[in-house]
Amino acid sequence: MTPQLPDNIDCNSCAALDAQDPLATFRDRFLNDGETIYLDGNSMGRLPRAALRRLQEMAEHEWGTILVRGWTESGWMESPLRVGDRIGALIGASPGEVLVADTTSVGLFRLMTSVLRARPQRRVIVTESSNFPTDLYIAGGVADLLGCEVRAVERGELREALDGDTALLMLTEVDFRTGERHDMGALTEAAHAAGALVLWDLSHSAGAVEIKLNHHGVDLAVGCGYKYLNGGPGSPAYLYVATALQEELRNPIQGWLGHDNPFLFAAEYRRAPGMRGWMSGSPPVLAIGALAVGVELQLEAGAHAVGEKAALLTEVFIRLAHARLDALGFEVATPASSERRGAQVSLRHPDGLAIVRAAGDRGVVGDFRPPELCRFGLAPLYTRFVDLWDAVERIADVVESGTSRLPKYQQEIAIP
Amino acid sequence: MTPQLPDNIDCNSCAALDAQDPLATFRDRFLNDGETIYLDGNSMGRLPRAALRRLQEMAEHEWGTILVRGWTESGWMESPLRVGDRIGALIGASPGEVLVADTTSVGLFRLMTSVLRARPQRRVIVTESSNFPTDLYIAGGVADLLGCEVRAVERGELREALDGDTALLMLTEVDFRTGERHDMGALTEAAHAAGALVLWDLSHSAGAVEIKLNHHGVDLAVGCGYKYLNGGPGSPAYLYVATALQEELRNPIQGWLGHDNPFLFAAEYRRAPGMRGWMSGSPPVLAIGALAVGVELQLEAGAHAVGEKAALLTEVFIRLAHARLDALGFEVATPASSERRGAQVSLRHPDGLAIVRAAGDRGVVGDFRPPELCRFGLAPLYTRFVDLWDAVERIADVVESGTSRLPKYQQEIAIP
Repeated sequence: MTPQLPDNIDCNSCAALDAQDPLATFRDRFLNDGETIYLDGNSMGRLPRAALRRLQEMAEHEWGTILVRGWTESGWMESPLRVGDRIGALIGASPGEVLVADTTSVGLFRLMTSVLRARPQRRVIVTESSNFPTDLYIAGGVADLLGCEVRAVERGELREALDGDTALLMLTEVDFRTGERHDMGALTEAAHAAGALVLWDLSHSAGAVEIKLNHHGVDLAVGCGYKYLNGGPGSPAYLYVATALQEELRNPIQGWLGHDNPFLFAAEYRRAPGMRGWMSGSPPVLAIGALAVGVELQLEAGAHAVGEKAALLTEVFIRLAHARLDALGFEVATPASSERRGAQVSLRHPDGLAIVRAAGDRGVVGDFRPPELCRFGLAPLYTRFVDLWDAVERIADVVESGTSRLPKYQQEIAIP
Repeated sequence: MTPQLPDNIDCNSCAALDAQDPLATFRDRFLNDGETIYLDGNSMGRLPRAALRRLQEMAEHEWGTILVRGWTESGWMESPLRVGDRIGALIGASPGEVLVADTTSVGLFRLMTSVLRARPQRRVIVTESSNFPTDLYIAGGVADLLGCEVRAVERGELREALDGDTALLMLTEVDFRTGERHDMGALTEAAHAAGALVLWDLSHSAGAVEIKLNHHGVDLAVGCGYKYLNGGPGSPAYLYVATALQEELRNPIQGWLGHDNPFLFAAEYRRAPGMRGWMSGSPPVLAIGALAVGVELQLEAGAHAVGEKAALLTEVFIRLAHARLDALGFEVATPASSERRGAQVSLRHPDGLAIVRAAGDRGVVGDFRPPELCRFGLAPLYTRFVDLWDAVERIADVVESGTSRLPKYQQEIAIP
């Protein structure tokens, strides 16, 4: 679709793109003050208006009135599997392969532990040294616990790092710093060729780009509910286990709701089949209800259309950045090819933190990742093309006007 | 306080007890249809009216408007520690000893794993064979993972089971079936005398009886937010690690928020001191907000007063049950001494499931635990003494009238 773009993108061409945008109406499905240009949906997504109503209804009617019977009558008990299947539809999984549960960190721990226990002859987790910290830290903890090794290498060395000792290749599909996107198909194939399993962290890709887990033969995945899925702050995570592995891999945190019949209260654990066996404690019912709203919005928009819009949004932002910001000391850190990036554009600038803070005060909310990355998440469901124009103009202005050099932006404060 | 009770308790004496009840006004702080006698707060507590407002405010104002800045500006990031400290005040812990996180199952896993790794020369977890299933199942999973042993014995054999191999005594303070309460002080002392640590599951006691963790020298504890703490369905759990052990024990699920400075996004994990080091993934912000409301209600009432009322409620219910239900084939399964029970009374009856279901249709909500226990939770904050009178009368009536023998109550259905 990039050929449609004029050589010089201006405010009018952005407005024209909005007029042609098949997803334009989704913007009003989210709470919006009409002023803030929110480019931080890659960190914490906006509030769907329907989620507000749903939370109110769940609290007042289900918790408040149906009370404990909600576990059956309101479908609370099945909600991790039901909403899991809806997420599965979004990420290219089959029904019965996705469960909503816990946090991404706990999901990573459970899946990595299960793989290393199932493949005792292979003792290495291969990952990328610039992976998201929790992925690295959790892997380190699992390695300490089980006496294994984490082999964290540069992106370009991943294939060489795979060998006969590799139990698992564990990667985040879209890099949280630069927005660079791995080739999921090729790397999954490389892992399988080495006899390893693969675990993809979809936190920065689900709801932003089209994902095809089954198509690529992906074994395992986790992801976060509160970024592009718009599930709310601290929304639960999800985990995916390919059907073929569900019998072999075992949940190490075998809580009562993963029992084949928890309400027998039997003394012996008997694992439930399928993803139900990955349930542990009681599900976070209200949070799953809010997450379900965000997931349905994504499904209504369609993962392919969302991915197409992300590609166009990032293309426009990158072109605007080159046109307007290169001269001000910015450097685009995100890949030029839309195939190789998520829905995020990151700009390097030595004064990045102050610029992000100054831009925030001008109504352009992005965030900063050390040492010098300004991150802008272009969530396809509620970001307009004109927002990109305005954002780049304001970012340029805070630098040109010297605003970002003001002492209040330059002082050392805790990084948000 | 039991001497105040007349020999024959009737409806009028119950009304008199309500008139003298210092906690009577708390009932109206919870949503209430004025008809249902809800005796299942030991399974899932009622909705505090203020929690409904708080959820609305957090969703609309914080998530919807403050957006990602809520992590700092709305105190989301600190909420697991802040609300943890409030729970700590309720259960006799010191500030900095309690964290709100995950589920009880995940908390049990993390604490048990940490103990067995810290004490490699001791390979046994001693517990009670009738402990809540998730406690047993999780212990079994930890034992499988680390090559340890779970020694599950009858209640009367716990002390003998403690020996030089015992790393941990792990018990639930109030039994979920019978409501029987362990002697926390004596058993903690016995575990320490054997050189073991102790882990108490407070799920059925916090918010129901007075707990003094520091006073008894308790090492570790977990508990659930959605029972007597009224945090809502699937509300997060909490964990307690005594200050003296915080340096020694390590969180095996070392997620990014347990890092000493997570927003540096460093490649190496460096554990944060204290309970912050037990944070793993992003906290469930909205659910913690709802839980905080329930916890504040408990603190306002006062743990001692709550425990006193629980003792009196259970005493009245037991006396009414003896007077009215013994002759109908019921047997009180809960200890006669108020020191030895929680805020729950369980009645054995061979037709228990049908009776609970029939009573439910008469507006008395209890629940059933196989093979024949009718459980009634007498949550001190919203249960009136007249409710107990009405409940026992209706339970008697569904048996006397033959209602519980109707086919619709007798048919085999899934246990709720």
